[in-house]
Amino acid sequence: MKYSLYFAPTSKDVPSEAEIISHKLMIRSGMIKQSSAGIYSWLPLGFNVLKKIEHIVRKEQEKAGAVELLMPTMQSADLWIKSGRYDDYGKEMLRIQDRSSRQMLYGPTNEELITEIFRSYINSYKDLPKNLFHIQWKFRDELRPRFGVMRGREFLMKDNYSFDLTFEEAKKSYNNMYRCYLKTFLKLGLTPIVLRAESGAIGGNLSHEFQILAKTGESTLYYDKELENIDPSKANIEKLQDYYAAVDDQHNPSECPINEKQLKISKGIEVGHIFYFGTKYSEKLSALVQTSDGKNVPVEMGSYGIGVSRLVGAIIEAFHDSKGIIWPDQVAPFYVSILNLNTKDLKCNQESEKMYSNLCNINIETLYDDRDIAAGSKFSDHDLIGIPYKIIIGPRDIKEGRVEIENRKTGKKNKLSIEEALNYIIKKSKDSQKL
Amino acid sequence: MKYSLYFAPTSKDVPSEAEIISHKLMIRSGMIKQSSAGIYSWLPLGFNVLKKIEHIVRKEQEKAGAVELLMPTMQSADLWIKSGRYDDYGKEMLRIQDRSSRQMLYGPTNEELITEIFRSYINSYKDLPKNLFHIQWKFRDELRPRFGVMRGREFLMKDNYSFDLTFEEAKKSYNNMYRCYLKTFLKLGLTPIVLRAESGAIGGNLSHEFQILAKTGESTLYYDKELENIDPSKANIEKLQDYYAAVDDQHNPSECPINEKQLKISKGIEVGHIFYFGTKYSEKLSALVQTSDGKNVPVEMGSYGIGVSRLVGAIIEAFHDSKGIIWPDQVAPFYVSILNLNTKDLKCNQESEKMYSNLCNINIETLYDDRDIAAGSKFSDHDLIGIPYKIIIGPRDIKEGRVEIENRKTGKKNKLSIEEALNYIIKKSKDSQKL
Repeated sequence: MKYSLYFAPTSKDVPSEAEIISHKLMIRSGMIKQSSAGIYSWLPLGFNVLKKIEHIVRKEQEKAGAVELLMPTMQSADLWIKSGRYDDYGKEMLRIQDRSSRQMLYGPTNEELITEIFRSYINSYKDLPKNLFHIQWKFRDELRPRFGVMRGREFLMKDNYSFDLTFEEAKKSYNNMYRCYLKTFLKLGLTPIVLRAESGAIGGNLSHEFQILAKTGESTLYYDKELENIDPSKANIEKLQDYYAAVDDQHNPSECPINEKQLKISKGIEVGHIFYFGTKYSEKLSALVQTSDGKNVPVEMGSYGIGVSRLVGAIIEAFHDSKGIIWPDQVAPFYVSILNLNTKDLKCNQESEKMYSNLCNINIETLYDDRDIAAGSKFSDHDLIGIPYKIIIGPRDIKEGRVEIENRKTGKKNKLSIEEALNYIIKKSKDSQKL
Repeated sequence: MKYSLYFAPTSKDVPSEAEIISHKLMIRSGMIKQSSAGIYSWLPLGFNVLKKIEHIVRKEQEKAGAVELLMPTMQSADLWIKSGRYDDYGKEMLRIQDRSSRQMLYGPTNEELITEIFRSYINSYKDLPKNLFHIQWKFRDELRPRFGVMRGREFLMKDNYSFDLTFEEAKKSYNNMYRCYLKTFLKLGLTPIVLRAESGAIGGNLSHEFQILAKTGESTLYYDKELENIDPSKANIEKLQDYYAAVDDQHNPSECPINEKQLKISKGIEVGHIFYFGTKYSEKLSALVQTSDGKNVPVEMGSYGIGVSRLVGAIIEAFHDSKGIIWPDQVAPFYVSILNLNTKDLKCNQESEKMYSNLCNINIETLYDDRDIAAGSKFSDHDLIGIPYKIIIGPRDIKEGRVEIENRKTGKKNKLSIEEALNYIIKKSKDSQKL
């Protein structure tokens, strides 16, 4: 993509309405624009990252055997009245009356609707287990939306629902999703901290929360400090589950299994939550299945959520420096930038164009900065946006057939021939696709 | 995908609430389930087709130079009050009051919001032209939603917006999208009929509508019957624009440029609409750009819409027979089915499994029917679902190392060795990827 044709309106101004770093950086890098309180337009850079996260979440769901469908955003109040949550949910539920005076709502979650879908088609143990997921916009009318996309009102969530005949089977489904969640966060370049959780409004008696470490998080976590040294691309799923971690009100120093030196206290952000809730909804909504001996029993259910749009902010909270965002390769909006330092120099233009078309031809996502602006502004814009590699093409170097490659994360620079630079990026890109 | 693990609840019952064939077939094949009047859940098969159409639409937008972003579904009423459409839009607009008593609405279209985004960042001719698109759910509160996803209330639309300095430039953008639309529909396997259109509520003075032929369409079209003989995979864009076509109230027999024998009258369905409306919104919302000589002028705009979810129904209207849907290869939910005719036969199971894993390994999307049900039900289910090819694995043939391939469209059957069958499908699949 040529920057001149793209739409990535960066800004030096620190937005006064933003309290936390991810919100500031998302506005400054032109990823989002607020349209109403807690409601955002995702500008091209932000949309690109959102889609990459969504893609990784989807792939891991599919690998775990979940099947994708899509429920609508607008729901009828009827099912919620039946389940008893219409009154319970309070003011966070956006209630709407349509032109025919039907009571509707903008779905904050989908337990009721998926149970109704299941009930309409499945009534035998022979069709179990089932695991259905969707990735859809939800709405929760927070009184004080804040922290940008981290606590927005309209947000993108992946939610899925498991259906089993017995508690034992339901537990298997739960454990399958538990492992799927660990894999998903690792794939995103994050080290998940797993916490036993209260199940709150959704109900049920088996529940875990997945958090990632970030100074600006809302929860206080006590955890084994080894967790900070884990490289997500090499992490062992089994081992990951063994580390100690607890939120403050669960942590009891006298019962903590690790010693004080090993313990660390820091803030975390919730990015996923899984629940087993048994027959809570299937009983109320009559989702019954016949057992092999002809009895009708309510189906055993679990629900599992990942905050897809929230993750965009959470990843920035975890990966940034004073200059801007540092995207993990797998979710970066582009893999490489080409900085043409002098668009009035014939050779710079020629070699930049050539490099750009070479990279496009091998499907490496490239943002080619062809704008006629000062070189310094290009450096600061691309540092802000956080693309993993820059290929810097300046008049002096290019005369000698050289370009410079800069790694956004390490800051390391390397002067290479044009061919070497291309091969370097190809190799790095292949390595990152293995993640 | 193994059918036993999938969720495609087919039915023989003809749904009484459905008036048109696409709606009937979508319900019977388990593609959609109505959740409220005009609001649908997209079950896995339907979701799969929706995603394929969305993907083709997106790729053609990108090829035409449009840049993707995503605006939210919920909008503030403020901008609509400024543009004057808040009152004009009538009861089709779903109006909502949030918990803080702000007037909100579920976006039926996005001219106001995109103009506001443009206005916030762009103010110079140097940054023009721009062409921004998004693919997002919209809501229009139809009094009598009908025809399934063809006239639903919550629907998926691709809309994009062009921004130019002058009328001449805006016309170039318009013509660029005009061609992009022709290409998009051809890519979907459809022959678009282009009609000059009234611009209605969106306003403006240059507008075209894209329809496809279908007996159940709402418009009556007069057109050159040659249009029916066009093969979308070989159509010539330039020539396509030259055929005569008009809706009934535009058609004047005494002025018709083709002779009566060449003229045909039939029904059509609108699947796309493009508008040039100049400065209608930019004036009201103060989206000004500076010209090269320092004047501030309102930006010239156009908007362009494709009904993505409506296309699912429209394609079925165009491609079906008495047995069910006949998907064009490029939007089929799966490319091939494997029908294991006897799941109690060891050899059938072994060879079906082997064929399935071979096809999966080369990324050919396969629905493997491993269900323990009568062979006849498998045939009727897969005819209903409309997957382009069936590989039929029965006990007698497989003993002799043979399977049968059936083409859904032509009904032709072929007995082939296992290896020949695999190669046949690979070849056909490669041909269809060239479309």
